[in-house]
Amino acid sequence: MPDAKLLEVFESPGDEPYVIEHIADEFTSLCPVTGHPDFGSVTVRYQPRPRREGGTCVELKSLKLYYQSFRSEGVFYEAVTNLIRDDLVRLMRPAWLQVRTDWRGRGGIRSTIRADHGEVPAEYRGK
Amino acid sequence: MPDAKLLEVFESPGDEPYVIEHIADEFTSLCPVTGHPDFGSVTVRYQPRPRREGGTCVELKSLKLYYQSFRSEGVFYEAVTNLIRDDLVRLMRPAWLQVRTDWRGRGGIRSTIRADHGEVPAEYRGK
Amino acid sequence: MPDAKLLEVFESPGDEPYVIEHIADEFTSLCPVTGHPDFGSVTVRYQPRPRREGGTCVELKSLKLYYQSFRSEGVFYEAVTNLIRDDLVRLMRPAWLQVRTDWRGRGGIRSTIRADHGEVPAEYRGK
Amino acid sequence: MPDAKLLEVFESPGDEPYVIEHIADEFTSLCPVTGHPDFGSVTVRYQPRPRREGGTCVELKSLKLYYQSFRSEGVFYEAVTNLIRDDLVRLMRPAWLQVRTDWRGRGGIRSTIRADHGEVPAEYRGK
Amino acid sequence: MPDAKLLEVFESPGDEPYVIEHIADEFTSLCPVTGHPDFGSVTVRYQPRPRREGGTCVELKSLKLYYQSFRSEGVFYEAVTNLIRDDLVRLMRPAWLQVRTDWRGRGGIRSTIRADHGEVPAEYRGK
Amino acid sequence: MPDAKLLEVFESPGDEPYVIEHIADEFTSLCPVTGHPDFGSVTVRYQPRPRREGGTCVELKSLKLYYQSFRSEGVFYEAVTNLIRDDLVRLMRPAWLQVRTDWRGRGGIRSTIRADHGEVPAEYRGK
Amino acid sequence: MPDAKLLEVFESPGDEPYVIEHIADEFTSLCPVTGHPDFGSVTVRYQPRPRREGGTCVELKSLKLYYQSFRSEGVFYEAVTNLIRDDLVRLMRPAWLQVRTDWRGRGGIRSTIRADHGEVPAEYRGK
Amino acid sequence: MPDAKLLEVFESPGDEPYVIEHIADEFTSLCPVTGHPDFGSVTVRYQPRPRREGGTCVELKSLKLYYQSFRSEGVFYEAVTNLIRDDLVRLMRPAWLQVRTDWRGRGGIRSTIRADHGEVPAEYRGK
Amino acid sequence: MPDAKLLEVFESPGDEPYVIEHIADEFTSLCPVTGHPDFGSVTVRYQPRPRREGGTCVELKSLKLYYQSFRSEGVFYEAVTNLIRDDLVRLMRPAWLQVRTDWRGRGGIRSTIRADHGEVPAEYRGK
Amino acid sequence: MPDAKLLEVFESPGDEPYVIEHIADEFTSLCPVTGHPDFGSVTVRYQPRPRREGGTCVELKSLKLYYQSFRSEGVFYEAVTNLIRDDLVRLMRPAWLQVRTDWRGRGGIRSTIRADHGEVPAEYRGK
Repeated sequence: MPDAKLLEVFESPGDEPYVIEHIADEFTSLCPVTGHPDFGSVTVRYQPRPRREGGTCVELKSLKLYYQSFRSEGVFYEAVTNLIRDDLVRLMRPAWLQVRTDWRGRGGIRSTIRADHGEVPAEYRGK
Repeated sequence: MPDAKLLEVFESPGDEPYVIEHIADEFTSLCPVTGHPDFGSVTVRYQPRPRREGGTCVELKSLKLYYQSFRSEGVFYEAVTNLIRDDLVRLMRPAWLQVRTDWRGRGGIRSTIRADHGEVPAEYRGK
Repeated sequence: MPDAKLLEVFESPGDEPYVIEHIADEFTSLCPVTGHPDFGSVTVRYQPRPRREGGTCVELKSLKLYYQSFRSEGVFYEAVTNLIRDDLVRLMRPAWLQVRTDWRGRGGIRSTIRADHGEVPAEYRGK
Repeated sequence: MPDAKLLEVFESPGDEPYVIEHIADEFTSLCPVTGHPDFGSVTVRYQPRPRREGGTCVELKSLKLYYQSFRSEGVFYEAVTNLIRDDLVRLMRPAWLQVRTDWRGRGGIRSTIRADHGEVPAEYRGK
Repeated sequence: MPDAKLLEVFESPGDEPYVIEHIADEFTSLCPVTGHPDFGSVTVRYQPRPRREGGTCVELKSLKLYYQSFRSEGVFYEAVTNLIRDDLVRLMRPAWLQVRTDWRGRGGIRSTIRADHGEVPAEYRGK
Repeated sequence: MPDAKLLEVFESPGDEPYVIEHIADEFTSLCPVTGHPDFGSVTVRYQPRPRREGGTCVELKSLKLYYQSFRSEGVFYEAVTNLIRDDLVRLMRPAWLQVRTDWRGRGGIRSTIRADHGEVPAEYRGK
Repeated sequence: MPDAKLLEVFESPGDEPYVIEHIADEFTSLCPVTGHPDFGSVTVRYQPRPRREGGTCVELKSLKLYYQSFRSEGVFYEAVTNLIRDDLVRLMRPAWLQVRTDWRGRGGIRSTIRADHGEVPAEYRGK
Repeated sequence: MPDAKLLEVFESPGDEPYVIEHIADEFTSLCPVTGHPDFGSVTVRYQPRPRREGGTCVELKSLKLYYQSFRSEGVFYEAVTNLIRDDLVRLMRPAWLQVRTDWRGRGGIRSTIRADHGEVPAEYRGK
Repeated sequence: MPDAKLLEVFESPGDEPYVIEHIADEFTSLCPVTGHPDFGSVTVRYQPRPRREGGTCVELKSLKLYYQSFRSEGVFYEAVTNLIRDDLVRLMRPAWLQVRTDWRGRGGIRSTIRADHGEVPAEYRGK
Repeated sequence: MPDAKLLEVFESPGDEPYVIEHIADEFTSLCPVTGHPDFGSVTVRYQPRPRREGGTCVELKSLKLYYQSFRSEGVFYEAVTNLIRDDLVRLMRPAWLQVRTDWRGRGGIRSTIRADHGEVPAEYRGK
């Protein structure tokens, strides 16, 4: 089951603002109603706090393991998206953070869910 | 014929704003003039109201059945688009909602219709 | 020769704002200098006035016939674009309207001409 | 109307076999039933006879003018394809020749017609 | 329901062999088990018999109407493909004929069915 | 774990040869060495025996469930491919059958495995 | 060598604002250091002044000849871009004008240079 | 190891603002944890200061050599991006500058890092 | 330097013929003349001998490490390709084997080298 | 003018057959009739003779300079193609050799010319 304790961080390497984006194309969880697998991709974008304020970045391998912990979990698209956002915000307390999930579709309908935290700059909203 | 009573909702899983997008690539209805079939895709984007205010999300399978109810209906592109927007707004009363329909073309002309409800944020307008 | 009398309208189906886009990929006219054919596509986007104010939409088949009336006409790219805009504005008096023409290229140079009418919203300008 | 007298040739520059392919993306004629324009592309492939046997190649600008002579002609897809093959074979008497026409589609159906002359090598058949 | 009597032919315009291909991207029928709509494309390739032997070609608009007659029919992928092949072979008795259907997918599985009649040349087999 | 008993068949609808292809884009299993998930697609192509000889086709939903039974299984690419081929051959005893698996890649290397059964025609080999 | 005297204009056909874009995909000049050829495309976008104020448009064939005059010229990417902008601004004195050059790359690095003149609207900046 | 002394400049050819973009598709460094190679592309965009204020441009071949100096360096994505930005800013003191790195992915996750310096105009932010 | 001792094998899982393909998109070596890095992809296809005859498959992680051993090696395209073929043939003695290398290009010229071993079936030759 | 003396060779690194392909995307010459530039790509494929028989490979940089020597030459498509083939055959006397030229098009017609030397294997013919 989803396990935020798998997530690890490292110290952000700088004080000037910069933006990090990770796209995981191999996400899978289960539909809580039918039990059938869902497949999708998860995109995370965020600006770490400055290093001098204790800013951190999520470590890439730990992020992968965290995503894998959804593999046998029955959970709705909307809940997955909100959960990942909340776990990552709690972990890093970034300046801002976005989560976008893209699902391959069931019954001919493809879906995308976007959840933001903090003041996401205009150029990243709706992307 | 189009039947809004097929639509069902579930409670939105959170209070923070987030955005949902559903793209149905297999929409078909009939041209009201010639009776020939029209083929297109229907994109719906919306922000549910917060859960604490009774916010709801349209259930995906019910949305599919609702779209299928247009299969034998003679209806213009513009009317389809306005009707779907009005039915979904009535159902969920979302913070805002967009409907976009893309039609494969007749006589060498492809068409897109966009209808909004409420204060659609700048990053979603015209998309 | 181009004949705006071919154009027909139908009453707009609603009072709330929405946007219509028609893309015709099979437009052809003649170069007024050399007499050789030009090939391109014509995109029209507009927001009809509300129905209660007499808002109308251009009928799709009549639009196709209107475009076909340029087939034997010698006319510059810029003039085609301005002419279509003026004819459609006169026909429907829409809230705003855009015409974009894309030409397949002569002598290794591809061209695009854009002509607007009224207050085109930011999300459609330059598209 | 289609006019094979527009076609001109030049002497093939060599005696060893080689293959020439010309793709014209801007072909248009009229539907003989409805009078509406058809749009497509015309591909010609051929191997000229050796120069020492009087082999010739069709001149590119004359080919373009020949194609333009179909612009106001009402003619079926199949007939266009056969006619171009026959005119070019008569003109050059090549070792072999292929004509392929690809049409943008009417009523949601796209069409391709292929007509060969002589012993078209296996690697070009059905292409 | 599928109605082969909608199909019409015209006389093939020539005696030399040539090949005709029609791709219909807007085919829809119903799943005989669930009643849900299936969406796909239908490709037909054939070589008409020579005109002097009474060779005929299927008329394009009648083919479109024939395809539309499957719209409310519950029928398996495999049966659709075999039925179209058999109806067209009976209609034209061509030198050879192929039918290929491509289905958009159900439950994450896309399908293609190919059915041939007669001696389909190597360059068209498996295409 | 992989369970061939999930597979079901239905009677092939005809006696003439035809070819069926199913592409499943959402296959996942586990790496037997690291336990990490592998993601890929599975393509099956086969020609059923004629109906009069008891020819059958694999039922699509049962195929999906069979694929899902690999979800928690640690198994090499090569073994997955051979296993699926053997299970389907045992199930249907088709005239011929191909399995192709395409894997998204580990450590920057993407892999494809192809396993055939019986006399696969030339036009399908290596595809 | 680059020769602005090759450029010709014609009178702009209207008083209302519109935008013209020309993309030349076949631009070549020489590297001033190595003498090796550079290949790229040149995009020009501008809004002519109104006709009543003497607004003009660059004639397409003269633009092509002007570009060809760079063929044997050793000149840096940045200088080409600035030079074309300055020559066209001097020629037409447009409301605004943009030049964008895209270079195919040397040593594994592709480059784009953008130079503006006047108040380029937001929707064209950075495009 | 990364060596900023490899970087060379030339004088900017003009005083009016313009924007330069260099995309290097063949960047490689090493993962500081595992020692395995990372592969990616590096995009730099900047506006040089005006020539009259001593504005300079980075010379393309020296930029290539500078990038090659990361080949045997163990360094994190975030640190590479910040380092390149800082080295180039120190070199040219441009009006503004952006660095974007795109990494091919490890463990199924692709990453992009963006670091800006100075007042990057809205049309370039998040690109 | 290239080190074939890094390569490891595992026993082929079956006796029936099947084909394995590995595509590595992140190959890099050095030009032996200039010392500049070359970038490309390496594709290996082979049919293992049957298990009962001691057939083996190259282990994927060891293949990756073997490719990485070219990173600091100055070697021509043609030699890389022949070397990989010879090392893999010596390792596995497969029924047949192909190596294809695709290089990103130097001086505007992209290159592909193909080297075969044994009786490569027709459907894989030239691919 | 085209200068075969620019071409250099190096000794083929092996005795076993292998195939080399070089694609140059930046070829330009002049139209001998109008003097306007032509742009295209040149693909060369060949199998060198075995090393023990004195087999050689064309050196890549010399090939680039040879292509550049066409820059100011007025020459027809067909003649360019035959000339390159003849020069390279004379230089290397390979087992077989192919030249393919693809031209960007004049007057809406794109062209490809293919010229072979020796026994080109089936899998490369018509490619």
